[in-house]
Amino acid sequence: MAVDFFLSNVAEYPRVVSISIFTAVLCFCIVIGHVLVNSRWTNEFAATIFIGCLSGIVILLLSRGKSSHILRFDEELFFIYLLPPIIFNAGFQVKKKQFFHNFVTIMLFGAIGVFISFFIISAGTWWLFPKIGFEGLTTWQYLALGAIFSSTDTVCTLQVLRQEETPHLYSLVFGEGVVNGATSIVLFNAIQKINASKIGGGTAFILLWDFLCLFSTSTMLGVAVGLSTAYTLKTFYFGRHSTDREVALMMLMAYLSYVVAELLNLSGIPTVFFCGIVMSHYAWHNATESSRVTTRHIFSTISFIAETFIFLYVGMDVFDIEKWKMTKIGVKATFGVNFILFILVLLGRAAFVFPLSILSNKISSGPERLIITFKHQFIIWWAGLMRGAVSIALAFNLFTVSGVTWDPVHATMITSTIVIVLFTTLAIGIFTKPLVNKLIHQAQRNNQPQTSISKEDPTTPLLSIEESTESNLLKATRSLSILLESPIHTIHFYWRKFDNAYMRPVFGGPTSSGGDR
Amino acid sequence: MAVDFFLSNVAEYPRVVSISIFTAVLCFCIVIGHVLVNSRWTNEFAATIFIGCLSGIVILLLSRGKSSHILRFDEELFFIYLLPPIIFNAGFQVKKKQFFHNFVTIMLFGAIGVFISFFIISAGTWWLFPKIGFEGLTTWQYLALGAIFSSTDTVCTLQVLRQEETPHLYSLVFGEGVVNGATSIVLFNAIQKINASKIGGGTAFILLWDFLCLFSTSTMLGVAVGLSTAYTLKTFYFGRHSTDREVALMMLMAYLSYVVAELLNLSGIPTVFFCGIVMSHYAWHNATESSRVTTRHIFSTISFIAETFIFLYVGMDVFDIEKWKMTKIGVKATFGVNFILFILVLLGRAAFVFPLSILSNKISSGPERLIITFKHQFIIWWAGLMRGAVSIALAFNLFTVSGVTWDPVHATMITSTIVIVLFTTLAIGIFTKPLVNKLIHQAQRNNQPQTSISKEDPTTPLLSIEESTESNLLKATRSLSILLESPIHTIHFYWRKFDNAYMRPVFGGPTSSGGDR
Repeated sequence: MAVDFFLSNVAEYPRVVSISIFTAVLCFCIVIGHVLVNSRWTNEFAATIFIGCLSGIVILLLSRGKSSHILRFDEELFFIYLLPPIIFNAGFQVKKKQFFHNFVTIMLFGAIGVFISFFIISAGTWWLFPKIGFEGLTTWQYLALGAIFSSTDTVCTLQVLRQEETPHLYSLVFGEGVVNGATSIVLFNAIQKINASKIGGGTAFILLWDFLCLFSTSTMLGVAVGLSTAYTLKTFYFGRHSTDREVALMMLMAYLSYVVAELLNLSGIPTVFFCGIVMSHYAWHNATESSRVTTRHIFSTISFIAETFIFLYVGMDVFDIEKWKMTKIGVKATFGVNFILFILVLLGRAAFVFPLSILSNKISSGPERLIITFKHQFIIWWAGLMRGAVSIALAFNLFTVSGVTWDPVHATMITSTIVIVLFTTLAIGIFTKPLVNKLIHQAQRNNQPQTSISKEDPTTPLLSIEESTESNLLKATRSLSILLESPIHTIHFYWRKFDNAYMRPVFGGPTSSGGDR
Repeated sequence: MAVDFFLSNVAEYPRVVSISIFTAVLCFCIVIGHVLVNSRWTNEFAATIFIGCLSGIVILLLSRGKSSHILRFDEELFFIYLLPPIIFNAGFQVKKKQFFHNFVTIMLFGAIGVFISFFIISAGTWWLFPKIGFEGLTTWQYLALGAIFSSTDTVCTLQVLRQEETPHLYSLVFGEGVVNGATSIVLFNAIQKINASKIGGGTAFILLWDFLCLFSTSTMLGVAVGLSTAYTLKTFYFGRHSTDREVALMMLMAYLSYVVAELLNLSGIPTVFFCGIVMSHYAWHNATESSRVTTRHIFSTISFIAETFIFLYVGMDVFDIEKWKMTKIGVKATFGVNFILFILVLLGRAAFVFPLSILSNKISSGPERLIITFKHQFIIWWAGLMRGAVSIALAFNLFTVSGVTWDPVHATMITSTIVIVLFTTLAIGIFTKPLVNKLIHQAQRNNQPQTSISKEDPTTPLLSIEESTESNLLKATRSLSILLESPIHTIHFYWRKFDNAYMRPVFGGPTSSGGDR
């Protein structure tokens, strides 16, 4: 009998209490974040995590040490509801021109880079953890650790770089973050499937090949969904009757691309990202004027709420007293584990950012190429050190069963992940803003004349700092780079021609080759 | 161990399949709805229900008769996630001037009307059900049936009336729907709490008093949350930095008002409705220009998606084979039950719309008063016959435990509710559009001169059709109405003065008394 249920007393739905508290704290975070916008020393997401920690402490005290969280970290919530709008908005708002100009570099960092970082962290933990007396992880768990700690936190990184101020750097760091997140998840997945006893030299190549297949099919799915949305909007001309229907269709189709990708065992992140790019390139132009203003803000607002939600969530999870009680290892060992992980994260990222930047500089050419100076490399390395919600979600997936674990080793890995995420987000988040301000202003002063040179002549020197000392090497590199880059530029030229002649008339968008937002 | 979980294979989260199918069908419904907008014979929500039915049949066939739904009807989903945005948007978009001018009439219809309808349906079922051999319901279940079938479906009703064409009628039917929905839920709740053996003459008054207390406290909470949002936006001037933050704060505060109301055992519907009114009156004016465009569309888009979702849901639930198998009563009895319920719904609504309209006409006065002609009364009666998601949710709450029931009588009540909702929405939804078009055009032609007369002189005849025949009665009525109405107009005058002098400078909004949207 349902007599026990009193409907309008929805407080009996157990989640209403959590939702109320969470919404209230979320509102508070938004206000605080606004107040902090002009602050030099922190960003609003660091503040949100801090507020999350405080709420966690308050709840811990109110519940007399029993529980510190009102919502348990839930992978489903994160991967199915919060991540898609963030990634879609990223694709929708990204400056496409710069993104595709840096495409090769982005793929180098995002795919190859993660593999390098993964290798260093896996090998490092496997070698160092037993030395400080922390044992109990299996081989494939060490491998999974590598994947968990190789994923850069796109969301937080973007907070410290402004697209308007440093468009090239932004598109690089941002693009890397998207590919990087996808790679980490794919890698994590692949690791759980491979047979740990059969790991050999070929495994890395198999993983890389798997990744490339997955990435390209996922991208194609996203492009297909984006194009069909654009075609539908253009054919039926929705704006005639209703703006809402237009916006609703774009939102639902974007979400559909993500869930279908997950359903087909593809990776939803590149799918929804490229769906966003295609939608902003074609579908957006088919909408009415008010829809255009609305979509731009609706997607970024939803994304903003999801981001704030995630950081609050992570902050609240810090004082998860149950997991801390469960760890059962000493303060020294805890410190050791966290220190090793942090150093490996630093090293793992350094090991690919600097070499791959130099490689990218060597093969880069064209009228609007980006020379990644050492200062830029440093910022890319630094800004990408932050670990975020993806790491947490992967760690929870590996080491817990629906957010609960009874194994001390596993509990330690969870708390360590939270510590690393918290430390990198807070500490690095706080110092990145002044660092970027300082380096970028200097770098722009140094770089400005070079950009103008390279615009005048596509075959001028490609390396900026080492220019005078390496002139012999330079000549060889230059020939190589022209050889390597020219097909990409030809592709881009033909793409624009094809786009104007065939794609835009069918799917929408300005038919003049002028504007690329 | 979590080895079994493969993360990026989120298909293992069981809901991904349902979400994918549902999103895809939702997109399809939006496109179909757009195509049908200019159709004379149907509205898009009837089409959505129809598509839902078709999907249900397809799923039924694919699952070989086992199951017809991909998502079980979930009260929590409905009351916590889908209903708040719809009601908030209703408050945000409503023409406040007309709404408050008709406030007395709306409250008459929404509160007293539901009580009359509730009484007729409860008494009717209690008297007629045993006569056709359908027994097994307890006294308070008969009472609950009255509440379940007294709630008008606001969402669908609004589809057939256009705010631009018939603003007075729209604000009446719409306002009634909101108050009506709240009353039904409150009533339903109150019934489950009262002792069935103690029902007497006083019960109705206790219920009415409970309702009035609840309604006024809920309204005050909504107004308070709306005002604090407006004050925050005005004080901090969010638009300076970010449109997203502004919009996000408005969305979250609105939602907060709803969940807090539910948490405090108040009724969330009037809370979030008045929160919407206050936000559009004050907070909206504090936002930047792009935020204003965005909020207007963001709320209506989310509301639109939620509405479509609900209708699709209801449509899919029709062929819930488990419940149909469970009913165990003959075709004749099923038909009898549904017929009785439908007739009682018709009668229950007629019993309050016509008398209360006449009462409202008698006490109505002022320069912009609305005379509810017989044709208008007929449309109000007809348009409000539709039963919708609120009825379904209440029925599921009463007769099932988390969507499942093993009692044949309860299963019958669930299927009957679905049949009534489907029948009223489809049949009445189809015929309302031509009916309204025909009657409104005639009514407007008849009504136009009267409105102009009443604008010239507030004390001219108040009753429109019976004017010449009832002149003696009229004079008495006129004196009465001036006596009754003049305080309301004085209140309105002082409110505008107070609003301009104290409220708007603090909470925002244009300080000239000119524009009321």
